[in-house]
Amino acid sequence: MDRRKVILDCDPGHDDAVNIMLAGRSPKLEVLGITVVAGNQTLEKTALNALKVVEHLGLDLKVYKGCPQPMVREKQTSAEIHGESGLDGPVFAPLRGKIEDKHAVSYLVETLMASDGDITLVPTGPLTNIAMAMRMEPQIIPKIKEIVLMGGCYQLGNVTPAAEFNIYVDPEAAHVVFSSGVPLVMVGLDVTRKVQCYPSVVERMRSIGTKAAHLFADMMEFFNKTQKEVFGWEGGPLHDPVTCAYLIDPSVLTVKEMYSEIDHFGGQSYGRTNCDYFGQSDKEPNSKVAIDIDVEKFWDIIEEGIRNYS
Amino acid sequence: MDRRKVILDCDPGHDDAVNIMLAGRSPKLEVLGITVVAGNQTLEKTALNALKVVEHLGLDLKVYKGCPQPMVREKQTSAEIHGESGLDGPVFAPLRGKIEDKHAVSYLVETLMASDGDITLVPTGPLTNIAMAMRMEPQIIPKIKEIVLMGGCYQLGNVTPAAEFNIYVDPEAAHVVFSSGVPLVMVGLDVTRKVQCYPSVVERMRSIGTKAAHLFADMMEFFNKTQKEVFGWEGGPLHDPVTCAYLIDPSVLTVKEMYSEIDHFGGQSYGRTNCDYFGQSDKEPNSKVAIDIDVEKFWDIIEEGIRNYS
Amino acid sequence: MDRRKVILDCDPGHDDAVNIMLAGRSPKLEVLGITVVAGNQTLEKTALNALKVVEHLGLDLKVYKGCPQPMVREKQTSAEIHGESGLDGPVFAPLRGKIEDKHAVSYLVETLMASDGDITLVPTGPLTNIAMAMRMEPQIIPKIKEIVLMGGCYQLGNVTPAAEFNIYVDPEAAHVVFSSGVPLVMVGLDVTRKVQCYPSVVERMRSIGTKAAHLFADMMEFFNKTQKEVFGWEGGPLHDPVTCAYLIDPSVLTVKEMYSEIDHFGGQSYGRTNCDYFGQSDKEPNSKVAIDIDVEKFWDIIEEGIRNYS
Amino acid sequence: MDRRKVILDCDPGHDDAVNIMLAGRSPKLEVLGITVVAGNQTLEKTALNALKVVEHLGLDLKVYKGCPQPMVREKQTSAEIHGESGLDGPVFAPLRGKIEDKHAVSYLVETLMASDGDITLVPTGPLTNIAMAMRMEPQIIPKIKEIVLMGGCYQLGNVTPAAEFNIYVDPEAAHVVFSSGVPLVMVGLDVTRKVQCYPSVVERMRSIGTKAAHLFADMMEFFNKTQKEVFGWEGGPLHDPVTCAYLIDPSVLTVKEMYSEIDHFGGQSYGRTNCDYFGQSDKEPNSKVAIDIDVEKFWDIIEEGIRNYS
Repeated sequence: MDRRKVILDCDPGHDDAVNIMLAGRSPKLEVLGITVVAGNQTLEKTALNALKVVEHLGLDLKVYKGCPQPMVREKQTSAEIHGESGLDGPVFAPLRGKIEDKHAVSYLVETLMASDGDITLVPTGPLTNIAMAMRMEPQIIPKIKEIVLMGGCYQLGNVTPAAEFNIYVDPEAAHVVFSSGVPLVMVGLDVTRKVQCYPSVVERMRSIGTKAAHLFADMMEFFNKTQKEVFGWEGGPLHDPVTCAYLIDPSVLTVKEMYSEIDHFGGQSYGRTNCDYFGQSDKEPNSKVAIDIDVEKFWDIIEEGIRNYS
Repeated sequence: MDRRKVILDCDPGHDDAVNIMLAGRSPKLEVLGITVVAGNQTLEKTALNALKVVEHLGLDLKVYKGCPQPMVREKQTSAEIHGESGLDGPVFAPLRGKIEDKHAVSYLVETLMASDGDITLVPTGPLTNIAMAMRMEPQIIPKIKEIVLMGGCYQLGNVTPAAEFNIYVDPEAAHVVFSSGVPLVMVGLDVTRKVQCYPSVVERMRSIGTKAAHLFADMMEFFNKTQKEVFGWEGGPLHDPVTCAYLIDPSVLTVKEMYSEIDHFGGQSYGRTNCDYFGQSDKEPNSKVAIDIDVEKFWDIIEEGIRNYS
Repeated sequence: MDRRKVILDCDPGHDDAVNIMLAGRSPKLEVLGITVVAGNQTLEKTALNALKVVEHLGLDLKVYKGCPQPMVREKQTSAEIHGESGLDGPVFAPLRGKIEDKHAVSYLVETLMASDGDITLVPTGPLTNIAMAMRMEPQIIPKIKEIVLMGGCYQLGNVTPAAEFNIYVDPEAAHVVFSSGVPLVMVGLDVTRKVQCYPSVVERMRSIGTKAAHLFADMMEFFNKTQKEVFGWEGGPLHDPVTCAYLIDPSVLTVKEMYSEIDHFGGQSYGRTNCDYFGQSDKEPNSKVAIDIDVEKFWDIIEEGIRNYS
Repeated sequence: MDRRKVILDCDPGHDDAVNIMLAGRSPKLEVLGITVVAGNQTLEKTALNALKVVEHLGLDLKVYKGCPQPMVREKQTSAEIHGESGLDGPVFAPLRGKIEDKHAVSYLVETLMASDGDITLVPTGPLTNIAMAMRMEPQIIPKIKEIVLMGGCYQLGNVTPAAEFNIYVDPEAAHVVFSSGVPLVMVGLDVTRKVQCYPSVVERMRSIGTKAAHLFADMMEFFNKTQKEVFGWEGGPLHDPVTCAYLIDPSVLTVKEMYSEIDHFGGQSYGRTNCDYFGQSDKEPNSKVAIDIDVEKFWDIIEEGIRNYS
């Protein structure tokens, strides 16, 4: 069976790290490279975190550093959730390799232009790198097979009442991507909030006993602690891995086609994803929006992803 | 037992009409007057509709006409839901009385200024009349005991993905009211969508057999038809009467204190109620927002409200 | 010759006071009443200032208090220009009369509805009262002969780079007025900045020697002092009286028809009057905008206005 | 004498073409390269126009193609001013050379990073390329000696009442550049409108008799024709060359330090440059804004620029 080609565009971040783990050895996916963006922490930190995870898991993947700040607005980070390093919790060995010299935006443009139109982008951070690539070279747009992104919400946000973090950090980039015409799957808080990583889940995964299992558990213990402090939840929602879980087994999500647009003109709803759930506008759908998730199936996919590392 | 003094500010509208019925003979409420605003239909029509309902039910209530258009933006109506008259469905006898000469805004200012601070306002349409009164005479603000309003949502809107109809029609008025400092209860789509008036409910109420029961059933049959056409729902949500149901028995709702503000500066989220559910801003709560409803109890209150008419 | 009927809607303020003086004994104008709004100072103060000027000059004019704050946004004042009282400088005798009980908005609605469509409104403060009246009772709109207002600019503002004070204080009200369809003459900073009241002008007027002349000179000496402190100008621009000067002798201004709209959606250009000088939009002109002024003729009109008081 | 190193970033366009001519043989300037952006016409056309001018004048300059559309908003062009080709009027020989393969944004990043901080950028089109370079690699920011740009206005715009074309086309890019901290000289419509290229000027330059002189005159005859059609002016304003004229002889402009910001959040003032002429905000100046021009000296500089071609 053909494996689906993906580029992971991320800002690790605990849940980004789990997503790398999930994709890294999946028999369904072929990860071409990892591009990194500022978001959960500064670019310097998120790039190092990506490399740490790759090396820790023994993956043969290159890491490209992208944009250190959003396209237009001022920079935001999320240290209260992900800690000082952006990936607090586990202990990593000193790095052996290094970040690539090529800029992530150049890597995206070159890789997509050279492709047969069979590459799926999987952004789990702000959409800065992808939007910048689209504006540098719009000819990449018809080359992108699909974008499966973690971001947005049609219900309550998590940074403001209106907005989810990844979109809020760079609403202009999100506008560029959502209005690009590329087929989109939006995996938002509406479903990711349902996969809460309770202590029982952490224990289930840790008991697998491998290095990958312990990495998962060490990360989630830290993540759960800060989520509880900020939101009062027992189990932090494992947002980002829902993207690759969907690519591995689409039946994990229920999606609905709708027109979605980004509030990118400042004001109190800045960064909101306005998803036309009821089809009240005349606009053609430009996205499949996740509206439900099979939570048990999701955890089975995660477990399988961990078990792929022996 | 003291009855709670209320002024119903409305734009009938089927669900406004049910709210008048519910309040009109309640032993818990004393309706001082009805003020009418443009919204579901033009002011001429909503004012006549209010009077029709009052006369049909034999209520001794005065009806005051207020503002025929929003404070700042252009006028919107909702004829696709409420029909050409704004209250299509039932057949009413010719009117015997007439609308008062006094402007609703003047009535609100004079009544509140002369009061002991014991009047609750119950708006179930756009907030134009109340905001205009607050700006004409800010001294009414400390005189208002509470505002229990139907409007807004912290999840999906019903006119746009962001906004609910009553707020969308006059976001500037909503901003004036929400920032006034008056204690507010926001009964939004988040709960009113749950009280769907299924055919079984219509039959239950019609079987009471009185004139009021038939009025309820005739209105709801029309309302259900258009709600199905627009939203695809079997039973239309009976939004407005949740306000008086709450005043009659507060236990019907679960409310949560939070800071809520109105997106009133145009753009795609114009008219959104941004409710800080998770308390992420530093702002003091200015509203109790309804987050759940006891649906069975609600229908019992409605039935009792109908049975109050013999 | 018929005198033109006007209502002065103002927030005195030194230049508003001169405008009352100019209109008060003009053989060309018949002042029906004075309505007052918050602006240069709080409503309490601007209303008292209007009454002080009226009594000091022996005019037989009623003063109506209107709205103490803008329609939607928070209140602004301009104490750094007009002083603590809003009319610092002259010494006034204790008041003999009092402010009318009727609200200015009610006065405007009633007076216009009872008129033959021959009344011109002359606002020289924020447009709150007039916009509120238009929204309370839209039937007044075709009754208004013309609105000749001081406000706005198509070049540089005086509160922000984008906005002039009167419009900035209540942009939503300005939007209501500018989009009402009433014939408008906009007398903005583009011309009023040219009538700088240099010390030589102050002396010219004081030398007339009457009570009115001394009132003018006492006010202007204070006004010039603060204008110099804030803007560095030797002679403060006498903004408001350009309105009545134009009504007395239209040849004092060069006006150009154009479409003008108000930026009323927040942001850094909030309160700008966007005047389509070059006719680049497809929209029909809704205003005559003053683009030049005959400065000498203006001072002659002012002198004549003072000499009307013996 | 050291020549000042400049990169011309442009969208030719008649006045851009004159700016290339002016800089191309100036003993005061060393043009390192020409980067091209979409604006007056599509990128394909503006890039070819730049190359045509370079070859026609025998200049040894490389041309780099940049971004074909603005950072965030939809694309605008100005065909009604510059004609179908973007440089209608003169007849050019078939091209001998070609546009460079390297992207203009990459050229900017690489050239600036390799520099000693002695390069001045001279944008005379939308600021897309420069803003994209700043966001790809923020380390270029301290490397830029100065940006001398044609764009903006603090008085009347030329596309809308609020906005000048170059800023209006890409307000988000302009915001990135104006908020970058790089020393800026803003040469806006406030001065460029004063250098109207009357027929007498065209004849003066044509009479020089060289190939360059005829190119100037052929271009300006077309430009004057469309400016008259759109704005009714006899002589079209020669906007862009004021930038290099200032670099050749700064005394041609009077500049004033002020804080300037870009209205980049949509609405009717979208693209306005709000320049704090009166220093009313507390913000530190971030720009020198041109407030007056010595018109005679400007035409002398242009004549000298043409005479540099023998």
